[in-house]
Amino acid sequence: MTYRTFRIPVELRFRDLDAYGHVNHAEFFTFIETARVKLMEHELEQRIGPGAPLFVVVEASCRYKEFITLRRDVVIVIQVEQMKRASFDLLYTITDGAERVFAVARTTMVCLDSDTQRPTPIPERFLELLCEKEAQK
Amino acid sequence: MTYRTFRIPVELRFRDLDAYGHVNHAEFFTFIETARVKLMEHELEQRIGPGAPLFVVVEASCRYKEFITLRRDVVIVIQVEQMKRASFDLLYTITDGAERVFAVARTTMVCLDSDTQRPTPIPERFLELLCEKEAQK
Amino acid sequence: MTYRTFRIPVELRFRDLDAYGHVNHAEFFTFIETARVKLMEHELEQRIGPGAPLFVVVEASCRYKEFITLRRDVVIVIQVEQMKRASFDLLYTITDGAERVFAVARTTMVCLDSDTQRPTPIPERFLELLCEKEAQK
Amino acid sequence: MTYRTFRIPVELRFRDLDAYGHVNHAEFFTFIETARVKLMEHELEQRIGPGAPLFVVVEASCRYKEFITLRRDVVIVIQVEQMKRASFDLLYTITDGAERVFAVARTTMVCLDSDTQRPTPIPERFLELLCEKEAQK
Repeated sequence: MTYRTFRIPVELRFRDLDAYGHVNHAEFFTFIETARVKLMEHELEQRIGPGAPLFVVVEASCRYKEFITLRRDVVIVIQVEQMKRASFDLLYTITDGAERVFAVARTTMVCLDSDTQRPTPIPERFLELLCEKEAQK
Repeated sequence: MTYRTFRIPVELRFRDLDAYGHVNHAEFFTFIETARVKLMEHELEQRIGPGAPLFVVVEASCRYKEFITLRRDVVIVIQVEQMKRASFDLLYTITDGAERVFAVARTTMVCLDSDTQRPTPIPERFLELLCEKEAQK
Repeated sequence: MTYRTFRIPVELRFRDLDAYGHVNHAEFFTFIETARVKLMEHELEQRIGPGAPLFVVVEASCRYKEFITLRRDVVIVIQVEQMKRASFDLLYTITDGAERVFAVARTTMVCLDSDTQRPTPIPERFLELLCEKEAQK
Repeated sequence: MTYRTFRIPVELRFRDLDAYGHVNHAEFFTFIETARVKLMEHELEQRIGPGAPLFVVVEASCRYKEFITLRRDVVIVIQVEQMKRASFDLLYTITDGAERVFAVARTTMVCLDSDTQRPTPIPERFLELLCEKEAQK
């Protein structure tokens, strides 16, 4: 199985800066969430709401390389690192859209049934979104 | 003096929603701030930082018409309502980019000298940004 | 009918400051929301959730008097200005707990039925919370 | 060298919840920042501002155990895991003040000189705050 890579721009806001004049470190997790939801919402057209499985972050980490000051946007490169039955790991590289890397982040997400709140297999459509179609012979 | 009208898109984030599933009412003020900074930053290329005059909100209000749920963006129409020597009033119409109006907001801003923290005349370049050039005869 | 006055402390966070080093102006609306929810949650023990009527902000405004820099908390004095059948106006004075007034804000809220999303009378228990009991003879 | 343990309450806000009705996962990093600043500000009385060394997060991670829904506060237990010359690791256990653990987080912070933006030794007063005084013989 080969995983796809996504490049998602996220617009910055003045409010993302903190009193140091840099984007606050917690905000990086909102950036990657925004990118993830854009990916899922706009490419898959999967609605967030009742009935839909819940993707829940069970682990998140970020390694900060460079301060982000006020700028138009960042571009987040999302790569799948691992897919299991009910969970998956994503790697996010937060860039300026070119060579600069501001931070590298990871999340482990679990897919929960919205009724039972228990792990449930990742929906097929979501797998198809994240993985390359195999070459047709 | 004739004032210009600006249409500034602001990208939404999942995090803008609150536990009711709507964009939180305080977030509307962040939207209009984001639009205002985009206007000032990107059109005027005026840097926010030491030395630059400080535009400070002294009054803000919003009338909410319709809930905003998760969507790609909103388009904020900014109109100057009044210009004084050291302060100005802006009117913001928060729309879907077409006919729908989610909210109408207003701010009164004062221009402060960043050293003295006292009112200072609005910079000429900023006036030119907000106002139509007079017809050339 | 006489209305009660409430004094609700709200703890500040470093993240409430923006790049100017002051509490961001949009955050004042989060402060008054926090105070309002503390009032409703902790005094009335009314749960926010399915079935409960929804209190929706239809208008909000704030007049800023003084910058707030990093401090332990603010104290928000909440006063009822007007009660109607399905809506009410609150006045919030954002203070240092003593004489200093940082801002004065107002909201108009409407009580919506959570199923129909239409205005519904303010629950009796909530009225009792906001209004003085009449003197017992 | 023995490190001290700190228990810092952080007040919750309705706005910390996201559209799922749980505290948003990025907000946990704001909680631990709030606790850290309360620790540094209120116990050390060290001002954040020009001249003071800058404590910058270079790595942050969180393992989520349980959803947090609307509640009065969380109590964050902060423990020093490692102290180096110009950096230190903190472990945060986000609890209900008793037995429940909502999440466990870690940060690596570097102390920067605010002028040169280069690593600088952790100030002595800050070391004294974090470490037990040795038993006097």
